[in-house]
Amino acid sequence: MDKDTFLQLLQNKKNLIDEALPAKVDRIQGHGGLKEAMLYSILAGGKRLRPTLLLMTIESFEQDSQVGLDAACAVEMIHTYSLIHDDLPAMDDDDFRRGNLTNHKIYGEAMAILAGDALLTYAFEVISGSKHMNNDLKIDLITKLSKAAGPEGMVDGQAADLEGEGKSLSLGELEQIHHRKTGALLGYSIYAGARIAGGTKQQLDHLIHFAHHLGLAFQIQDDILDVEGDESKIGKPIGSDVQNNKSTYPHLLTISGAKDQLLKEVASAKQNLYRAGIKHDWLEHFTDYMISRDH
Amino acid sequence: MDKDTFLQLLQNKKNLIDEALPAKVDRIQGHGGLKEAMLYSILAGGKRLRPTLLLMTIESFEQDSQVGLDAACAVEMIHTYSLIHDDLPAMDDDDFRRGNLTNHKIYGEAMAILAGDALLTYAFEVISGSKHMNNDLKIDLITKLSKAAGPEGMVDGQAADLEGEGKSLSLGELEQIHHRKTGALLGYSIYAGARIAGGTKQQLDHLIHFAHHLGLAFQIQDDILDVEGDESKIGKPIGSDVQNNKSTYPHLLTISGAKDQLLKEVASAKQNLYRAGIKHDWLEHFTDYMISRDH
Repeated sequence: MDKDTFLQLLQNKKNLIDEALPAKVDRIQGHGGLKEAMLYSILAGGKRLRPTLLLMTIESFEQDSQVGLDAACAVEMIHTYSLIHDDLPAMDDDDFRRGNLTNHKIYGEAMAILAGDALLTYAFEVISGSKHMNNDLKIDLITKLSKAAGPEGMVDGQAADLEGEGKSLSLGELEQIHHRKTGALLGYSIYAGARIAGGTKQQLDHLIHFAHHLGLAFQIQDDILDVEGDESKIGKPIGSDVQNNKSTYPHLLTISGAKDQLLKEVASAKQNLYRAGIKHDWLEHFTDYMISRDH
Repeated sequence: MDKDTFLQLLQNKKNLIDEALPAKVDRIQGHGGLKEAMLYSILAGGKRLRPTLLLMTIESFEQDSQVGLDAACAVEMIHTYSLIHDDLPAMDDDDFRRGNLTNHKIYGEAMAILAGDALLTYAFEVISGSKHMNNDLKIDLITKLSKAAGPEGMVDGQAADLEGEGKSLSLGELEQIHHRKTGALLGYSIYAGARIAGGTKQQLDHLIHFAHHLGLAFQIQDDILDVEGDESKIGKPIGSDVQNNKSTYPHLLTISGAKDQLLKEVASAKQNLYRAGIKHDWLEHFTDYMISRDH
């Protein structure tokens, strides 16, 4: 497949998410203020990397990705909640996200905390209430998603990141943090897609390794963009990692060392992807797309 | 059954929870700081009303309550997370809870937010990973728990409570808030217990109404204690509702009107309980216990 066809397919998946995700939040029968705050961040856009990755993984197996739409929306809800909480004054204290005011700048800190809590909880409701999956599959996905997002996954990575501020971390420590903070949800997305599509145990194992390296590549790219990126495209100030005293790949390896490391992670990711032996090359395209992004 | 036998049984269930709950958190393979903050609030004690209610409901049906231990721990984790977030400076700004410093006073706001997020997420992992229930039962419980805790349940009640501060609410509005804020998790506990025990559809329906009135009775008692209670027993300052400009039952109905309303809710609760036709009278004892508590 050529790159343009891939990008068109990707856009198509992103459109599906951009439509389904707010619709799911909008059907909540709740008191007005909370839902409004949830919708604000859900509608704030973003690349929808995790859910599109999930849908593309299903289609790589030549299966109908519609089955995975609930699981895809759930992971984006969890990603969105983590951004809302991350931006709070007590955490990263960011006023802008993707060029828009952050949730707490509009709705206040208390409502932003609750909107995050609500999105996190609702993600599990969306999977457990899905009409497209049987209960065995749902339980497997809920187990994996809660592990990926919880105290052995994303939240633990955030806590370690918090405690690492101002300390100089080793490369191993930094990898461990990012593997949990960013890698875990990307890993869930790929696992969920392959599991929904009926991938074999061996394919799932290879794809988990693929996801691990893809997650690290993603984070290194993020760190590089924080140094070299275009502020107007990223939607937040350049250099905020340095300002927040965060350990980063460019800081530990120099910018050119970080770029070398990025290429190594991409090579390892693709090696594991080939081993999985999936017919379509969409995940290979996805990998190239993720590391060539400029925001 | 006499009251002493009931209280002994209740203590026995509470001991089960006090042992199982920290053990579940302690087995998390995470980075140190987050788990420590989670354990702090899990070990801060409390009455363990929700999980003991769940276990007692199972035993009311003469079934083994061991099967429900994971579902019981999960609801207490969600209750604990909600307290951690509720106490934050941006929310109720409480320094003490049950006589101990609140989570953020020890670990800082950022870690307290993450500890709450982690407990919420982990609650779903605990149910989905339970070895005592089949997947159909797990999915039913996860559906009910996410609804009870999420944007149509507890979190929505908290948001409405937040927006209601300083406004004068009608009795109907106040009931609606409490039904979600407090009633939803109590309702889950009773539903889960009856569902695990194999209660009939009709019994579950009656018990849901029982839970609704029990929840309101519980909240009215809470409001009365905030006016008349003993500070040393409650573990937080008396009159904090008035200070926070919260609408309460004593405020709307006078203290004697609130006590009348409490008795009415208890009568409605018991009426629905009798309709369910459960052999044991433990839930009747539980109702009396809940409204006679002094903290």
